[in-house]
Amino acid sequence: MSRPLILISNDDGITSRGIRVLVEVMAELGEVVVVAPDSPQSGMGHAITIGDTLRLFETNLFQDLGVVSYKCSGTPADCIKLAKHHVLKDRNPDLVVSGINHGSNLAVSVLYSGTMSAAIEGAIEGFPSVGFSLCDFSHKADFEHTREPVKHIASEVLTKGLPKGIALNVNIPPKQNEKLQGIKVCRQAKAHWEEEFDQRKDPYGRPYFWLSGNFVNNDKGEDTDVWAVDHNYVSIVPCQYDLTAHHSIAQMNDEWDV
Amino acid sequence: MSRPLILISNDDGITSRGIRVLVEVMAELGEVVVVAPDSPQSGMGHAITIGDTLRLFETNLFQDLGVVSYKCSGTPADCIKLAKHHVLKDRNPDLVVSGINHGSNLAVSVLYSGTMSAAIEGAIEGFPSVGFSLCDFSHKADFEHTREPVKHIASEVLTKGLPKGIALNVNIPPKQNEKLQGIKVCRQAKAHWEEEFDQRKDPYGRPYFWLSGNFVNNDKGEDTDVWAVDHNYVSIVPCQYDLTAHHSIAQMNDEWDV
Repeated sequence: MSRPLILISNDDGITSRGIRVLVEVMAELGEVVVVAPDSPQSGMGHAITIGDTLRLFETNLFQDLGVVSYKCSGTPADCIKLAKHHVLKDRNPDLVVSGINHGSNLAVSVLYSGTMSAAIEGAIEGFPSVGFSLCDFSHKADFEHTREPVKHIASEVLTKGLPKGIALNVNIPPKQNEKLQGIKVCRQAKAHWEEEFDQRKDPYGRPYFWLSGNFVNNDKGEDTDVWAVDHNYVSIVPCQYDLTAHHSIAQMNDEWDV
Repeated sequence: MSRPLILISNDDGITSRGIRVLVEVMAELGEVVVVAPDSPQSGMGHAITIGDTLRLFETNLFQDLGVVSYKCSGTPADCIKLAKHHVLKDRNPDLVVSGINHGSNLAVSVLYSGTMSAAIEGAIEGFPSVGFSLCDFSHKADFEHTREPVKHIASEVLTKGLPKGIALNVNIPPKQNEKLQGIKVCRQAKAHWEEEFDQRKDPYGRPYFWLSGNFVNNDKGEDTDVWAVDHNYVSIVPCQYDLTAHHSIAQMNDEWDV
């Protein structure tokens, strides 16, 4: 059997530490092609570039691993589209992976996540797709313990595939003294961000704002991604990109004057 | 009863034609506050600004209607967050509306839509929220026929509320000779974009790309948003922001080595 073709992107940018780890692990599993943003794209959600031009240039960043790579001026979703239509052309990837994000993408954060937008774009294109995040925002975050679960999950997807319309959101706990407890398939927690805006004045006296906030989880369920990561499990949430709330259709037809 | 408080945003920018129509219609229903991007943000998906500063300035664009308005340097989702935490502070809007987008947001386009990201952000914050789009990309698109369905749908939401975690994606057909057929509550069609990249050379000989593409619908269901708009109905898709594919959790637990 020929080696599987694995497409890699991310949102922290092609020079980030997390994508290096991901490329090293995937190179053990198949032929790897990287198309990733040339600069950080965190918080880009599912943005695409439609009012501006896109640049795409080959790099030698992963030459030591025998991996072809391209840096792109666009968003993570742009990267996947350009990879499919321009870089890979008639070859379909057997797996699309994104990450490893330097920071968590738990609960509702999946909507804001550039990491997951690459994975969801992969699923929209019909490819089995996974986004990986390390739940550690610290500058010195250790990525070494992510290698084993990342390889295991990617191998499972390569072997078993994924249902159509589903991308996996994988979050890995920060490195701890004790070993990872295992992997749990979860629902996303009903948690949210409580934003705060830090208002300042620029040197010309005009106001500006920094968005910051705290992640608040009031969901006590033990079947959530937040619970899993808090208990040193790797969480996997299967995510669908069809947002239809089917249960609400009948209800609205009953109650509404339509 | 006091007049309801209605927060308005969009993604085409605060000077666009669609938001003017939306403000005029909403001013008939309640007290309106506008917080909208200072420039077009189409295709921004659910992006938020986390690596850069945000600006927010009051404008007099809707003074003739007695409506307070602010232009923001950020994305549609940023606008809703700033509106909640800085502009409205302790007052919760009774309704968040976004639009009227100059162009359709049917089927999977909801993921890329800045219009819908403002509505979904409103739902995340716990407010009844609706995104409105006119399915007409032409420069001279006529918005007049949108006024009646926009007012009707907003009134229904103000009277009946919406389930928690749900935002409505409303698409209105282009102006036609015959009257609108009515309103249909729908699922999103399983349609997709087939992208094409137009590769060019800049004056310095370096390549760049324009993203373009065609909307392809192979979903023949008569219960979809695409079907409704094609048959001159206004479509409403109730959208949930929890992406968990619950049906896949048990399946993965059965089949996977986790």
